[in-house]
Amino acid sequence: MLEGLYVAHSDLITYTADDVHCLVTANKVEGKVGIATGGGSGHLPLFLGYVGKGMLDGCSVGDVFQSPSAEQMLAVTKAIDSGAGVLYIYGNYNGDIFNFDMAAEMADFEENIKVLSVVAGDDVASAAPSAPGEKSTRRGVAGIFFVYKCAGAAASKMKTLEEVKRIAEKAAANIRTMGVALSSCVVPRVGRPGFSIGEDDMEIGMGIHGEPGIRHGKLESADKITDEMLEKIVADLPYADGDEVDVLVNGLGATTLDEQYIVTRRISQYLTGKNIKVHRFYVGEYATALEMAGISLSLFKLDDELKELMEQPACTPFFKQL
Amino acid sequence: MLEGLYVAHSDLITYTADDVHCLVTANKVEGKVGIATGGGSGHLPLFLGYVGKGMLDGCSVGDVFQSPSAEQMLAVTKAIDSGAGVLYIYGNYNGDIFNFDMAAEMADFEENIKVLSVVAGDDVASAAPSAPGEKSTRRGVAGIFFVYKCAGAAASKMKTLEEVKRIAEKAAANIRTMGVALSSCVVPRVGRPGFSIGEDDMEIGMGIHGEPGIRHGKLESADKITDEMLEKIVADLPYADGDEVDVLVNGLGATTLDEQYIVTRRISQYLTGKNIKVHRFYVGEYATALEMAGISLSLFKLDDELKELMEQPACTPFFKQL
Repeated sequence: MLEGLYVAHSDLITYTADDVHCLVTANKVEGKVGIATGGGSGHLPLFLGYVGKGMLDGCSVGDVFQSPSAEQMLAVTKAIDSGAGVLYIYGNYNGDIFNFDMAAEMADFEENIKVLSVVAGDDVASAAPSAPGEKSTRRGVAGIFFVYKCAGAAASKMKTLEEVKRIAEKAAANIRTMGVALSSCVVPRVGRPGFSIGEDDMEIGMGIHGEPGIRHGKLESADKITDEMLEKIVADLPYADGDEVDVLVNGLGATTLDEQYIVTRRISQYLTGKNIKVHRFYVGEYATALEMAGISLSLFKLDDELKELMEQPACTPFFKQL
Repeated sequence: MLEGLYVAHSDLITYTADDVHCLVTANKVEGKVGIATGGGSGHLPLFLGYVGKGMLDGCSVGDVFQSPSAEQMLAVTKAIDSGAGVLYIYGNYNGDIFNFDMAAEMADFEENIKVLSVVAGDDVASAAPSAPGEKSTRRGVAGIFFVYKCAGAAASKMKTLEEVKRIAEKAAANIRTMGVALSSCVVPRVGRPGFSIGEDDMEIGMGIHGEPGIRHGKLESADKITDEMLEKIVADLPYADGDEVDVLVNGLGATTLDEQYIVTRRISQYLTGKNIKVHRFYVGEYATALEMAGISLSLFKLDDELKELMEQPACTPFFKQL
């Protein structure tokens, strides 16, 4: 898979340290803050696909649903740093946190590269109530796309590492996502589905590795499912009357674009009813769970700064905005 | 689905004649040849998704796997003509041919709009041997994307209707496609799969509406399947030592991007062995068959003129090139 990616997109991406798992931009910009992400395979276009102009500079990737190693993250860090420091943006999973923290320490002590980190968690379903100061259990899912986009645009404007971090944190705090799965997926090494969902059933709130959802039930219409998810998303931040948002309608792998647009229509109706204005819709496969059938919805609450960053151009293998 | 499309992409597309099935560009260019396509729903991003800047100007769309009507095609034709005439580019299916021919006659007699047509047929599996002068049985499948791209770029350069037609015909003649299906799909109105493929089986050469393929057999590795398809594709045109091609690796709906890149890797190896040079790879879902699992491969033989047109920018809901 990785070899195919490099063959197809050699104008935008290459790899470092003789390791195809260590993907870096083919168009390094001197003096710019480098942005790296990473995570397990099986989520294309996440994470690899957002390395390019105006977004990320590097990405280390592990086996399917497994974290890359700290050494791989460090190799990417070294390759993309050009003196302005490196920002890590990744999802809230223990393996990734452990390895990225170790890579950041190694970069600091061994390479004298300043690294800051933003851990994104946008999933409504996994946000268990926690005491103040406790670590969030909120998983990072498709909404991390918005964090990449805003941080990438900020770095392209040659902002400092601290500024890019501030923007990434603000963006991450303004995103909420919820998913629904209609089928399971097969991790190739395992060779059979990790769980099963009945033919007429669905699992609302399921994670992108098959983590259990918050409600298992019979299939309902696209409109009803959309309403149920939006109700939880809107209440969670909360998004309020007069807010402006970007919306991501994300296919999890096997769900048709037709169905994604049926859901898009309902989102528009629902948000109009709440007087929440949509700045832009992004519809398609942005973060998948292999061949899982299902969809996730993300709302990203905008202010003037974030909106302007979302409108900047970008060119990566999977996301192009003019 | 259509309402969702208009909501999400109002900067690029709108509709005419108070009929959401009659999609037209939101950015009409005066004096430019208009390009229209059309066909059944269920193939997103085909056909609708390629209306925008640098590609198509209009598209009429029918129910799932059904042709739009001649009246709908005519409505689109009237909306996109600005005096330079309109070119129809569509796939080789009887319903579409019948309706587009009727629309062209009505445009000519009733509206005084000059219409020319190019019927694209790129599918290797459906090309039954025919006597000279006989109508081709070759179906139009994913490769029509290349025809849209070249014709759209030519029209954007303000070439005449005859010139745009010449380029579209040359492009169409240089494309060959072959598909493999691993599962069926459900036409919503019917509510059950139109055919079945065993869990461990595949159908090589299957059409995007489930038309029978040329070989049914047990599943094989991605490399073996790719080699078998490329052998037939390369022999059919034929593509020869020293040729330069654009390559389209197209997911049919439920097949992961990971798998598409595994196939991309093998294509690169295979064509290198034949000394056929790849100009660019296009990988992703470009023409689907609802939620069918499977993939199609297209080769597009380039000359200097076609290559230059492929490199021009485009911006549509589904295809953006900078």
